Amino acid sequence: MVDGWTCPLPLRDYAKVTIGHGGGGQLTDELIRHLFLPAFGDAAVDATPTDSAVVAMAGHRLAFTTDSYVVRPLFFPGGNIGELAVNGTVNDLAMAGAQPLALSTAFVLEEGLELDVLGRVATAMGEAAVRAGARLVTGDTKVVDAGQADGMYITTAGIGLVPADVDVRPERAAPGDTIILSGPVGLHGTAVLSVREGLEFGTELRSDCAPLNGLVQSMLATDGDIHLLRDLTRGGLAAALCEIAETAGFGIRFDESDVAVPPEVRAACGFLGLDPIHVANEGKLVAILPADDADTVLEAMHAHELGADAVVIGAVTDEHPGVVVARTALGAHRIVDRPLGEQLPRIC
Amino acid sequence: MVDGWTCPLPLRDYAKVTIGHGGGGQLTDELIRHLFLPAFGDAAVDATPTDSAVVAMAGHRLAFTTDSYVVRPLFFPGGNIGELAVNGTVNDLAMAGAQPLALSTAFVLEEGLELDVLGRVATAMGEAAVRAGARLVTGDTKVVDAGQADGMYITTAGIGLVPADVDVRPERAAPGDTIILSGPVGLHGTAVLSVREGLEFGTELRSDCAPLNGLVQSMLATDGDIHLLRDLTRGGLAAALCEIAETAGFGIRFDESDVAVPPEVRAACGFLGLDPIHVANEGKLVAILPADDADTVLEAMHAHELGADAVVIGAVTDEHPGVVVARTALGAHRIVDRPLGEQLPRIC
Repeated sequence: MVDGWTCPLPLRDYAKVTIGHGGGGQLTDELIRHLFLPAFGDAAVDATPTDSAVVAMAGHRLAFTTDSYVVRPLFFPGGNIGELAVNGTVNDLAMAGAQPLALSTAFVLEEGLELDVLGRVATAMGEAAVRAGARLVTGDTKVVDAGQADGMYITTAGIGLVPADVDVRPERAAPGDTIILSGPVGLHGTAVLSVREGLEFGTELRSDCAPLNGLVQSMLATDGDIHLLRDLTRGGLAAALCEIAETAGFGIRFDESDVAVPPEVRAACGFLGLDPIHVANEGKLVAILPADDADTVLEAMHAHELGADAVVIGAVTDEHPGVVVARTALGAHRIVDRPLGEQLPRIC
Repeated sequence: MVDGWTCPLPLRDYAKVTIGHGGGGQLTDELIRHLFLPAFGDAAVDATPTDSAVVAMAGHRLAFTTDSYVVRPLFFPGGNIGELAVNGTVNDLAMAGAQPLALSTAFVLEEGLELDVLGRVATAMGEAAVRAGARLVTGDTKVVDAGQADGMYITTAGIGLVPADVDVRPERAAPGDTIILSGPVGLHGTAVLSVREGLEFGTELRSDCAPLNGLVQSMLATDGDIHLLRDLTRGGLAAALCEIAETAGFGIRFDESDVAVPPEVRAACGFLGLDPIHVANEGKLVAILPADDADTVLEAMHAHELGADAVVIGAVTDEHPGVVVARTALGAHRIVDRPLGEQLPRIC
């Protein structure tokens, strides 16, 4: 008799939003593919969801992107929510090969927030925009009741032109391509967590929050034919490489010993049980390009302060399609998975 | 002896964010002018802040706008937060004379929100976008802890091209111009409030939430030289006219008996002590244009379902510069002020 027996719900058949749905991992991806895209219907676009959309407009290609920032706390070593919001949108445009033309800023403020705090955040936004060469052209302010919104949430959107000779997108990655990483990983996520949880790791962790458009511009100015650019935000290096492998339909292999992890990040990750390649960065990217072009592009990166430590970490392969394989420091191989949700919630 | 005596703080020298700072009235204006613009510094633009920025791009004019939506409750008669977010951004683009090209959608979701609720909101967004002829091309999802964000906040941004022959902006309003109102006022604010507060007014109040780009397109297709368009959202008709008068530096006079107020709105406003011309709408606009062009444009408006009740309500004058004067139903005249904050918080 199986009357009354019901099949247990599959693990991920959630009826409610969980923190992991906002983590940028598999759950976010499922929310987009199984809820947002079907619900949007004919208003949705067919293209692979990326951090920027590229829209055809009057014979030009316009990159368009948005992100909400809900980081806790609002200020952390190396940055704050405002700087993060501007740099994040600048970087999403840069990953489409676009220079930022104009940004919008929408604030949801908590009643009772000190105006001094808002002023410091807004000043950081202005400075970040100037640094990136972008203007803050339009915005909105809403206020919600005390106890809501953790002080403030900020949503930035941005537009920028993609130059006619630039074509960077996941579909261009091809077997044999080289993968370049712009610098050491794991600083942003561990820096935010260290102040939120009041942890001390001996040395100070500082977020790597920075605008990457200048670095990208210097890379695109070379003769190198850059196929794809991706910044390593939520989910870190691992999520970025997994997404690329899934979208391109090729495999990716990289060498863990080529991925620089600062000692203080390694210490923090060891203490917290995190894998540095899954931790968010806010000023790092990977570039995928033909092996023959790697030296030229690396040279341009090394000449830029944000690419001084750029190295080749791996390659695109036609083996194990859709799968990312890391060679460990001990010479073993392991499959790198996308996280289900987010190891570190509310870090951006 | 006045030792120990300190001057009382001026009323509006707030050190903290108040609900009124998000109301779209004088406090919001002060926050923009005295906090955001100075803090943004060289990244800010000099132009008069309007709901849309118009950005020069490769020989074209691109309208760019953003708004956050924090309406409570999420569903109300005549619409929901998602429909509101799409229509609001479509309308801000339309007020710059632009057709919406692409919209972005950024969600801040509360942990524990029913996915079914999110699905219904997202479906409404897709339908609203299709109705307006816009695509939802990019987005973001963040999740915050249970108890935050009242279910969800949505921030939309949008871009659209301004046709070469269109020039609508506050500076074009001139003495002698006629002011057209597209229909009855006060429905959105009172509809949201009626469900939030559980009030019953005998007849059902329904929000007028609608995309105005089709109506605007039919108006711009006439020979009429439309100088200015403004939708009547936060602060209602009064705030819109006051902003126009202040920006243009001319006076505005209108006749209250020409402003249609539905009986159920009048009843709700009487009960709540509100003035219908201060209540938010989400599907109404005013147009300012030469008196000679009024008949042509009115004819086009009457042919559109959202402009069927359009009427002339007043004129721009060189008397009382910067001031809005209403002729009351009894024939008296009164100065119309911008509200300090918002009579009805959290209605959009």
